[in-house]
Amino acid sequence: MREVAVIGAGMSRWGELWHQDLRDLSCEAVLKALAETKADRVDSIHVGCMTGGLFAGQEHLASVMADCLGFAGVPASRSESACASGGVAFKAAYAEVAAGLCDVALVVGVEKMTDVGGDEATYALGTAADQEYECYNGATFPGLYAMMAVRHMHEFGTTRRQLSQVAVKNHSNGLLNPEAQYHAKITAEEVESSAHVADPLRLLDCSPITDGAAALVLCPLDMAKKLGKKAPVKVLAIGHATDTIALHSRKDVCRLAAVEKAAERAYKAASLKPEDIDLAEVHDCFTIAEIMVTEALGFARRGEGGKLVASGATAIGGKIPVNTSGGLKSKGHPVGATGVAQLVELAVQLRGEAGGRQVKKPSAGLAQNMGGTGGSSIVSILGVA
Amino acid sequence: MREVAVIGAGMSRWGELWHQDLRDLSCEAVLKALAETKADRVDSIHVGCMTGGLFAGQEHLASVMADCLGFAGVPASRSESACASGGVAFKAAYAEVAAGLCDVALVVGVEKMTDVGGDEATYALGTAADQEYECYNGATFPGLYAMMAVRHMHEFGTTRRQLSQVAVKNHSNGLLNPEAQYHAKITAEEVESSAHVADPLRLLDCSPITDGAAALVLCPLDMAKKLGKKAPVKVLAIGHATDTIALHSRKDVCRLAAVEKAAERAYKAASLKPEDIDLAEVHDCFTIAEIMVTEALGFARRGEGGKLVASGATAIGGKIPVNTSGGLKSKGHPVGATGVAQLVELAVQLRGEAGGRQVKKPSAGLAQNMGGTGGSSIVSILGVA
Repeated sequence: MREVAVIGAGMSRWGELWHQDLRDLSCEAVLKALAETKADRVDSIHVGCMTGGLFAGQEHLASVMADCLGFAGVPASRSESACASGGVAFKAAYAEVAAGLCDVALVVGVEKMTDVGGDEATYALGTAADQEYECYNGATFPGLYAMMAVRHMHEFGTTRRQLSQVAVKNHSNGLLNPEAQYHAKITAEEVESSAHVADPLRLLDCSPITDGAAALVLCPLDMAKKLGKKAPVKVLAIGHATDTIALHSRKDVCRLAAVEKAAERAYKAASLKPEDIDLAEVHDCFTIAEIMVTEALGFARRGEGGKLVASGATAIGGKIPVNTSGGLKSKGHPVGATGVAQLVELAVQLRGEAGGRQVKKPSAGLAQNMGGTGGSSIVSILGVA
Repeated sequence: MREVAVIGAGMSRWGELWHQDLRDLSCEAVLKALAETKADRVDSIHVGCMTGGLFAGQEHLASVMADCLGFAGVPASRSESACASGGVAFKAAYAEVAAGLCDVALVVGVEKMTDVGGDEATYALGTAADQEYECYNGATFPGLYAMMAVRHMHEFGTTRRQLSQVAVKNHSNGLLNPEAQYHAKITAEEVESSAHVADPLRLLDCSPITDGAAALVLCPLDMAKKLGKKAPVKVLAIGHATDTIALHSRKDVCRLAAVEKAAERAYKAASLKPEDIDLAEVHDCFTIAEIMVTEALGFARRGEGGKLVASGATAIGGKIPVNTSGGLKSKGHPVGATGVAQLVELAVQLRGEAGGRQVKKPSAGLAQNMGGTGGSSIVSILGVA
């Protein structure tokens, strides 16, 4: 098995972009990623997209993307695992390069979410949950995460203020990311007085509906000098796991078993521990998610994710900076693009190119991407080559 | 890179199955495939499904499948490339086993199509074409293939009767496949007097709307004796390619460039020629498709696919039997399952277990799976190990 490097990384500007469709967004991100390389060809394309069908009436993105990028002919596939689609597409590309089936692999994550109305978007996002049991009985996505939050607060004393502190931190980081959807500093009081969505979650606890794309170029590590223009970033490990699709099937709704398993697999494969990680991009689709994920990744003890954010340890300059990009909360959450954009942020940080949000000399970064309420998760660790 | 074997293969009964959902269908196929092995675990799951979102309101099939199969925890991904989703899922699993990332990989292709009405199904299938240009302007899938048929008839003298002969042959083969949707012998006259769909294509030129699933178990070839109960089948090569998504972007609508490229790559990787193939399962979503595909695969010269079927060469017992399973036409076409079921048929044939439809001592079989009007295609060659 060959070692694999990231030699190009880019994302489109994210936001509510009515003038751009799936193709425009993807081309913007891919051109940025390819411009960082000297590759004169692409051998394989992997697209991460959750539901082109429900958001844009377009499936078969393999052919759409190969065509619009000028690569018609090149093998292309789309990977889906709800909001973890980007991470899963990255893994698929990694496997092909590692196996020696191709040399230059392009990964593009994309979602075009704002062409449908609110009800349609809620329905589309609900397809990440259990349609026949959860959604049929009236559960929405914020409603499911709200139940996790209520239980976490009950069991561990996690506070409303700690939830707010996740949003405040991530919006503060997003101010420093030019591609982020929101550039707005917010206060805990503003989070706590924003509109109710599903108690205890309020509007500013929720990641937004976003149009956006992100792209990566991978190649074997031993070709990275020849094919890349910048210092290569090495893929140290990818851990991947699933859990029950429905929340009601789990023994403990305060545990993200898929994240725990994916992290355990990634740490083992990379021979690293949580304390060896210098920064992490995690799946803060709701503020409670970041709190639970930091526990599942071993950055905080069980039940102490709220205390971790409150301590400032996850801020830029803290012990373990989390979501320096602004996270899903402030950077935005075009579902299929998110997992790829997390890795773009790690690449930028590991190269020392993150400007105002740069973490001091990181050597290893972790990205945790999650589908549904934790029905699937993928944890990737990148390092300085 | 490790050599890879198929050690288990199975499909559910296919048809209009209102009593079975995505999970029921998948479990039926997977249990059959696993029963052919001695594997006591599954390391990775790959689901092929075109549009769970539009047909069943359910995406995130990675988690749904891992959960309903009793494998929650196991890494799982869904692959999509329209009607080539099953073939692409097979390739993704193959890459992981070849790379050494996992040993026992489960592939399941599934589609539940009959829970929506005709208009909704037409819309869902149209997402395999170019939504913004073709579908927006009124093209349907049968309409696009009808244009290809008209041009092929004009350019090469392909006849209405030759189209019918594809349907007659495949329904004749389907009679011998217990899992097929249709068990009905039809005549050329019946095809030619069936309802008009899109001139020149009639109802009996079109593959049906189907519920169904198919499954395969893969492992490294050197573990196949230990993990399998039956003679292993070896994966000789997988070729994969794309073409423009829209028909109007192609220089020649009578050429399936993606199929030609995918076949060229597969033949080269397997060091085989078209004449070395003993049977083929090809993507006869419409009768004209089988004619064009047999040309693209090199079984007939360009423009002579109609003559090939008329000669009897593609019948069981002919020089190159095509669609012994009944093909999409008679076996059915649950879009995401089709590519996997083609490989199930090859495995069954290569083991000599195909009963009344058995081809005489085949040593190599080819499966050609196609997305849209040929926007993507994947060609896999399996052989006796």
